[in-house]
This record gives sequence, C-alpha cells and structure tokens, in this order.
Amino acid sequence: MTWDPIGGSLDFRTLHDAYRSGSLTPSAVVAAVYDRIAARGPDPAWTTLIPRERALAAAAALEASVAGPDDLPLYGLPFAIKDNFDVAGLPTSEACRANEHVATETDPNVRLLLEAGAIAIGKNNMDQFGMGLVGVRTDYGIPRCVFDPAYISGGSTSGGGVAVAAGLVSFALGGDAAGSGRVPAALNNIVGLKPTNGLVPFGRSAAGMGASHTVLTLTVEDNVRALQVLIRHDAGDPLSLPVAATTRLAISPPPERFRFAVPSRESRIFAGDDAAEALFDAAIARLEAMGGTAVPFDYALLHRAARMLYEDAFIARRYANLKPIFEACGDRFHPATRAVLSQALKYSAADVFVAQYELAGHRKYALALFDDVDVMVLPTTPTTFTVEELEERNVECNAIMGSYTNFVNLMEFCALAVPNGFRPDGLPQGLMFVGPSFADDRVLGFGAAWHRATGLTLGATGHPQP
Amino acid sequence: MTWDPIGGSLDFRTLHDAYRSGSLTPSAVVAAVYDRIAARGPDPAWTTLIPRERALAAAAALEASVAGPDDLPLYGLPFAIKDNFDVAGLPTSEACRANEHVATETDPNVRLLLEAGAIAIGKNNMDQFGMGLVGVRTDYGIPRCVFDPAYISGGSTSGGGVAVAAGLVSFALGGDAAGSGRVPAALNNIVGLKPTNGLVPFGRSAAGMGASHTVLTLTVEDNVRALQVLIRHDAGDPLSLPVAATTRLAISPPPERFRFAVPSRESRIFAGDDAAEALFDAAIARLEAMGGTAVPFDYALLHRAARMLYEDAFIARRYANLKPIFEACGDRFHPATRAVLSQALKYSAADVFVAQYELAGHRKYALALFDDVDVMVLPTTPTTFTVEELEERNVECNAIMGSYTNFVNLMEFCALAVPNGFRPDGLPQGLMFVGPSFADDRVLGFGAAWHRATGLTLGATGHPQP
Repeated sequence: MTWDPIGGSLDFRTLHDAYRSGSLTPSAVVAAVYDRIAARGPDPAWTTLIPRERALAAAAALEASVAGPDDLPLYGLPFAIKDNFDVAGLPTSEACRANEHVATETDPNVRLLLEAGAIAIGKNNMDQFGMGLVGVRTDYGIPRCVFDPAYISGGSTSGGGVAVAAGLVSFALGGDAAGSGRVPAALNNIVGLKPTNGLVPFGRSAAGMGASHTVLTLTVEDNVRALQVLIRHDAGDPLSLPVAATTRLAISPPPERFRFAVPSRESRIFAGDDAAEALFDAAIARLEAMGGTAVPFDYALLHRAARMLYEDAFIARRYANLKPIFEACGDRFHPATRAVLSQALKYSAADVFVAQYELAGHRKYALALFDDVDVMVLPTTPTTFTVEELEERNVECNAIMGSYTNFVNLMEFCALAVPNGFRPDGLPQGLMFVGPSFADDRVLGFGAAWHRATGLTLGATGHPQP
Repeated sequence: MTWDPIGGSLDFRTLHDAYRSGSLTPSAVVAAVYDRIAARGPDPAWTTLIPRERALAAAAALEASVAGPDDLPLYGLPFAIKDNFDVAGLPTSEACRANEHVATETDPNVRLLLEAGAIAIGKNNMDQFGMGLVGVRTDYGIPRCVFDPAYISGGSTSGGGVAVAAGLVSFALGGDAAGSGRVPAALNNIVGLKPTNGLVPFGRSAAGMGASHTVLTLTVEDNVRALQVLIRHDAGDPLSLPVAATTRLAISPPPERFRFAVPSRESRIFAGDDAAEALFDAAIARLEAMGGTAVPFDYALLHRAARMLYEDAFIARRYANLKPIFEACGDRFHPATRAVLSQALKYSAADVFVAQYELAGHRKYALALFDDVDVMVLPTTPTTFTVEELEERNVECNAIMGSYTNFVNLMEFCALAVPNGFRPDGLPQGLMFVGPSFADDRVLGFGAAWHRATGLTLGATGHPQP
C-alpha cells in the first residue's frame, strides 16, 4: 500500500513500512500532518500547536541521525500530548486558564516518547485537571466527536481522542484515572489501555493511586508499542512497581474456548440507549462465535464501586492533589469541576476508611468473578451525549459515562477499550475487556482478536486495519 | 516429666503428653488453674472469670466425649479471652465501664477454639478498645508485669499476657492492630504472632484493616497450633482472603546461612535503655553465630511509618469503628483513649490520601529491604515503663512502646515476637522477626529456632521449654 501524503493512515505499521521502504520520510509525514490540521481549521482539540517549523526540524534531525526505523520503537511517529504534561517552553494549563503557565521542563514521559523517535505536534485539550469523562469541562473550547460535532468527544483525554481518530497523529499521550483514556477511545472508534497501576509511573502525588498514564491509538498493536516506552520502575515513586522494570507488554491471544463475564440483563446500564444495548448484545454474540461462553453476573456492586469514585470520600484523593490550586483559584474553575471538587470538603478522614472498607468488599466480589472467567466484558460507556445535554446536566451525564470505567481504577485492575461498531446514527460505541491486576497481556489479546474480528476501519479515517 | 497439679507447665506439649498418657485429665488441669488463680488473689488481669464449676463442667464434658487428645487440636487446653470478644452470658466491656454489656452471642473465634477442645477460663483486661500498648488504659485496674508489679504488662492484650506468663492458662486470645499482641508478649517473656492480614477474619469493620486477631502462648509451636484454628476464609468479610481457606501455618526452619536486616546504630530507638540495647546487641551476635549476616539499614522511615498509625490520619480508622460509642459515651473513656481518639476529628478525607501515599513510599522501602534479606530483626519494644511513668506521660510512653511494632500493621506484614532474655533488673525484653505479607512460616521458623537457642524458660513459670 502506498501512503498518500494527505490521506494515508498514520497507524504505526503503515508508517513503519513506508519509512523502511523509503517511500516516505518523517519530514513528509509531519508536513502532511500540519496540512491536515490546517485543513480542519481552528480546532479545540488543541490547546497549543508546536510550530510547524519546529516539528519539521525534529523530523529532519531524526532523518539526519544514525538511527533508522528499526532502531527506534516510535521512529517518525507524530504524536499529541494531553495538556497536563509539561513540555519545556510551552504552556501547561490542564484546561484551566487560571492555571496556565509556561513549563520550564519537559515531563519524563514526553521525553521518553521523543527519545523513542516520536515527533511532538502539539498539546491537547482535556477536562480540567483530568476530572471528567466528557471533554466539555474546559476553558479552551469543546472538542467534538469526530463523527458528529453535536456530540461530545469524551474525556478527559478529549483532544487526544479527536487527534488520533481524525488521523492527525499516530498516537496521543493521555491519562486514565477514571476512564479518561478509555471513554474518548470509545466515542471516537479508537483504542485505549488502562494498564495495571504501577507499571507506568504516575509521579509523586496521592492522585496517582488508581491512575495511570495511557496512550490512545488506532490499533491494539500500536497501543502496546507506545505504552511499552512508558513502562518502567521509578524508584522515587511510591506507587511505581519494581516489576515494571522487567515488564514487556505482549498480546496474548485468547484460548480457543474461553469464558467471559458480562453484566446480567437486569443489572445493565444503558441509560435508555437501545442502540448501544443492541451493539453490546451483538458483541456478546460475536464473542460466543469466537469460542466464548458468556457468564452473566450482577453488575450492581461494581456499579456502586464505580459511583464511589466521585460520589464518596474518594473524591478527596483528587482534592488532596489539587488543594493548593483549588484554594488559589478554585473560583475560576469550570463550574462542574468546582462543584465536584468541593464535595471533597464534606468528607472526614473516618469516611475514607469506611469507604475503603466497602470498596474492599466490592473488589473481593470482582476478584471472585475472575476466578471463574478469563475476562470481563463491558460496554465502555452506557451511551453518549450531545454537548448541549452536557450543558444542562453536566455532573449527571458525566456520572453515567463512568458507569463501567471508574471501578477499574479504584480496584487497580487493567482494562482495554476497543471499538464496537456504530449505532444507526453513525456514532461509535466501545467495548471493554477488563482483567485483574497484571492481566494486561490477556486483555490486550482479547482486544486485538476482537478488533481484528470486527473488521472496523480506523478512527474516522476510513482506513482499514493494517 | 510428670505434671504437678499446682506447679506443672501448661504448654501444649506437656499437657498433650499428660492427657495421652493418662497422667492428667482436663478436669484436674482446670481445677489446678482455678487454684492458681485463687492463690494469686484479686488480679486485674481478669475482667470476668468464668465460674469454676462451669469450666469444670466443660472439662468433664470433654472427658465424656468420644474425642481424645489426638482428635482435637486444642484438647483440654485452658485459655483466656480478651474482653473485646463476646462470650454469651458474660459481660463484654473492652475495658470501658460505660461500654459494659452482657453478650448474647459467642464470638465465632471463641467458638472455634472451644470446638477445638479448649476450655475457657475467663476474660482478660485490656487497653480500652484495643487502643494502647501499655495496659493502663482501663477502668478495671491495671494488670502488672509478671516479673515486677511496678511495671506495665504491655497491651492492649494486657491481661492475656499476664495470664499466659503466670501459668494460669495455656494460651490467650487477643488482637494485634498496632502491636497489641506482640508488646505484652515481649514484656512477659512469651510468644505472639501478628499473622499476615486476611488470614484470620477480623470481622466487618474498617478497623480490621491492618489488624489481626492473635494468640499469646508460651512457645512458638503452641502459637502455630492455636492460631491455625482461627485461620479461615470468611466470604462475608471484605478483608478476609480466600487463600486462608487452604493456609496451613508451618514452622519453616531458617537456612544454614541467612541475611537479616537490623536497624543501623544511628537509627535505633531504645529511649535511653542501655540494658535493652545490650540485649539487642547480644541477639545480633547470637543470630550471627546461628549462621546469619546482619545487614544494617536506616530505620528512620519505618519509624516514621510506625508513628503515622497514631500521629497521622490513620487514627481515623479507629475512629471510624468507634464513632457511635465515642459519641455516646466518649466523655467516660479513659482520658488517654479519649485524647488519642479525638485527634481523628482534625483530619480530613484528603489527609488520609496524603498519608496513604506517604505510607506507600515507606512500604516500598521495606519491601526493597526484604529483597535483600531473609528476615528483619527488631527489638519488639525499645524499653518498658513503670505504671507510675505511664500515669505521668501516657501518650508519650505509649508511642515509644510502638516504635517497632506499628508499621507492621500499617504495611500488612507479619511479625513474630519472641523472648530475648532479661535486663539485669530482671525485666524481659522481646525480639521480633518481621517478614513481608505471607512470610508467616518463615518468621515462625526463625522465631522457633531462636527461642530454642536462647534456652529461656517459659513466661514467669520457671519451666523449661518442652
């Protein structure tokens, strides 16, 4: 397949093959990327674009180096960066103008991606401080779903989801503390893994508990390749695991016969979205055709756990981290962000222990399920919403979007969000493979086989899977 | 060895052998136990004694049953029960008169011990609500160290420590949420294991996190035998581990050559007790003679973690559990209990997450140590205090007593307290073998070999190890 400088796919394999064969250079790809971005016009997916000349210079430097496409895992891959990662010389805002400041150092995760040969294009819009699954909680305009601008992109890695699905970058660096990577993946027909906690260092803050950095990509294979660059042990990070130093993600194919847990019909949550429910039923049927046996379970306890992330004392984990900035300029936060964060103030220390004890019970229930099945299969989200709906019912709609994702973070499990086709109105829905801690390879294996079986094209690009 | 009805040892092996040979009966032992108790006169080690006739009836029933000494693991062993376990028909107070009430049901742990053939003698005094390592925080008089009544018995399983060491029972059921089993073991020349959390169900409360039920015994072998009866999986307890259903404690002998971590000279805490420090140095020398290599480490971070249990937001874990009774009659708590518990009110939910994040760092440090050594060896306590000193500096002295024990609970490790000989003034000190979670067999192995090597007699009984 030849690569069309304007229309070609930016998936890793296509670019890698083109680089190896000499049919393309990083400079040509970067130039095409900027042309595509320009062709879209002003786009709230970005908070900051790196100047075209600077990105082209990076591409040229890569071409002039001794390293070739086989020497660097992310050679010549254009990527975007969620605006809560620092890049020296660029503003970091976390989507809050009151917090905007020019960074003096580059985040180590960004540095690792650059050292692996990737080329930074710009910084992405997000839900403020990573708190939101909708993309509308921002001072920088609202990124829109790539399939229908009336709809949300999902969040908090909202701009990253759009940038990947629109074919503007090969991958986007983001985060997932409640579904912030998986939800935009679902709403834009792309892929996001929330790896087991402790594999990618999250940095020195209480907010790291349950959270992970993540990448959004067009395929499962690309996700593994990019995320592997970030997996490491950071001795200075209390939550970073020593085993990460030797962890190599792999796509472990599902067994010929397998068992998968699915929410029972009574405990499903689709918020009245019959089309989304039909897609989920079709997914179950397809998994059964792939050799699986569906094992229904009562999702109620896990839904309760999911709700605990924002509707119980756990909200204070976010507050613990944001306290200084909340006290300094909380009045200029997005109203929804401020409202949610303010809830933290009503919980006492004792409330946390009561909540953690309850959560331990729900987690034990989930772990017992995993004793009986190979993987848990859930919708990534129950449905989606228009931007207008969010303006009216922000906190409520946001809570619905996290119905299936939040508990994974609280329980420190791993989960892969993959595309699950389209509703009749043309909007995509996602499917999620969830495993216990350290089952990353297994959920990747299910997700890769699944994505291949669907035959879906990549994001909103129309390109077939490579 | 023949058993003298008044002076004989109540260790398990001695009694078991006597029962098998027919030289003794449970009835004779129970009668002797009550004679011994009567001979001591009024003793604040007990809050309630079971009527002699009732215990004798239990012994007679056992003798009349088809089960013999080889059929029941605790056949005919007299035992005592910390006053926070319910026994139907007896008062439960947790050492707080305002809380005293007659129990209508028998705690499942007590029931298991009874079903295993043990014979209940009475309920033991304790630090109120298990909060304390000193034994003086009680409304029921102050149990005294069996070696010198001017000194504390240690707590919170204070009366249990005295009852075992004085040769009044074969074992005592207690708890260890901060060292409550290990500290009285140390101060009375006996043995206490804090098993890995989740092996013995603690019941349905947030207080269970980090805590475990425990038993105090004269020997390591006895400890294994009694504790095994309590190890099980409770499906209804979020913190109870399924693996407990198949866990069989075993004494795993140390390797011929081993490495043991000890606090560096600079980071040791002995509160000026040179005699205790000399005993610890002698222990290091003995362990080296046993094939060990001492690996000094900086104890400062673990000491910080230890202090966090009562001097940071973790105190709210206790408060979460005691809130109803604290609100109902906190004004009638022991002043020290009330003062410590009141601290919980000043912590917010966010404070807990900050504290847990810090603790995660200390735990990671400890786990890295265990990568390099077979076991960690610590003094059980830095020193001991007189009851008078406690009356003047209750909270301060109590904190010193927990310098080495508290972190084990917060980190959910396991630790065995064993005797470490006597200061020149005749007061015992303890040695503690600490391992990571699930290293129970290893610390038991070290402890058993250690105790044997010391050749120390049992408790205050003067009896040799069997």
